[in-house]
Amino acid sequence: METTKEGLFLTLEGIDGCGKSTQAGRLASWLRERDPRRPVLWTREPGGWPGGADFRERILRGQWEHPWSEVFLFLADRCEHVLREILPALARGEQVLCERYHDSTLAYQSFGRGLPLEALRRFSRDCRFPLPHRTLLLDLPVEDALRRLQQREGAADRLEGEGRPFLERVRRGFLCLAEAEPERYAVVDARGDEEQVFARLCRAVEERTLP
Amino acid sequence: METTKEGLFLTLEGIDGCGKSTQAGRLASWLRERDPRRPVLWTREPGGWPGGADFRERILRGQWEHPWSEVFLFLADRCEHVLREILPALARGEQVLCERYHDSTLAYQSFGRGLPLEALRRFSRDCRFPLPHRTLLLDLPVEDALRRLQQREGAADRLEGEGRPFLERVRRGFLCLAEAEPERYAVVDARGDEEQVFARLCRAVEERTLP
Repeated sequence: METTKEGLFLTLEGIDGCGKSTQAGRLASWLRERDPRRPVLWTREPGGWPGGADFRERILRGQWEHPWSEVFLFLADRCEHVLREILPALARGEQVLCERYHDSTLAYQSFGRGLPLEALRRFSRDCRFPLPHRTLLLDLPVEDALRRLQQREGAADRLEGEGRPFLERVRRGFLCLAEAEPERYAVVDARGDEEQVFARLCRAVEERTLP
Repeated sequence: METTKEGLFLTLEGIDGCGKSTQAGRLASWLRERDPRRPVLWTREPGGWPGGADFRERILRGQWEHPWSEVFLFLADRCEHVLREILPALARGEQVLCERYHDSTLAYQSFGRGLPLEALRRFSRDCRFPLPHRTLLLDLPVEDALRRLQQREGAADRLEGEGRPFLERVRRGFLCLAEAEPERYAVVDARGDEEQVFARLCRAVEERTLP
């Protein structure tokens, strides 16, 4: 992966139910107010490109039998997303805030499903995906995440299908990745109410000098 | 890629317009007659699995902007195809005849579009796709292929969009791959009428002792 010189590239990661989407909306507004000269692109994976919504549905709802199929679909999606949305915004000097990115692929597909980490990393290098300046990991115990998901229709069912041990592995995966790259990662405690978590997220952006 | 012990795995390759589909149908019947105890699975990529027809349309008609997107979509398709169709048929000891496979990815995406060959090969190793026992390359000058395609509605337009130099590179790519693996590949002259080409194909299957 390559570091980009222009713009600011932030990613928001964490297991399902950790509060990414809720916090991303608030964070996008906060970034806008903090630096009004630099527009904010708030986007997500999969599907954050024109035509990508349909592709997102297909990936998430599809019955993929081979363990690598999902990986390749996420990568194809990322290729289009990076090329059409992320890189142009960064080249214009904008602030990009992306929910889920490369690290989700590593946490879910390698730590979660057991595919080899090094192969997944190589794919990203082959594609020259840009490296985020800062990755904010919303860390939440699986128990709490599942409780939050129960309030969203359908979501808990789908994830319960994967099994709690799967989400435990994914959570631990994210924490391992964070430990290996402390300069890029900020681990943010996602327990507590929305306000508290949001304040922690803002601090995690401010504590580091970013482009 | 891994060699499979059961069944017989044949692939049919070549540029668009070389006559793959026409010949595949005849070859499938011939294989059936030649060894009636072993059923023949005649299939193709992309899309040769249940639900794959829709996926095929999406890959071939999609407007993919990143050069790797198409590669990843073909790989996801191959994962499902191999797992659901090819491997089970081979495990049952059947004869599998597949139009387009791994070598098309190398010829089109690497020789045609310039993506690194070694990375594409690595993907196939990572996924442990089975290696064909014999790959029949229908080799035809681009000039002749385009003439044949002009008789098929739409096909010539789509390929002319890629440009003749692209198809020339793909054709040369297939020939390079064949030269590097003479044991697996048989280069079959696809000029002349259907009968002549079919006779050459049958000879190419018979000239080698296959499982």
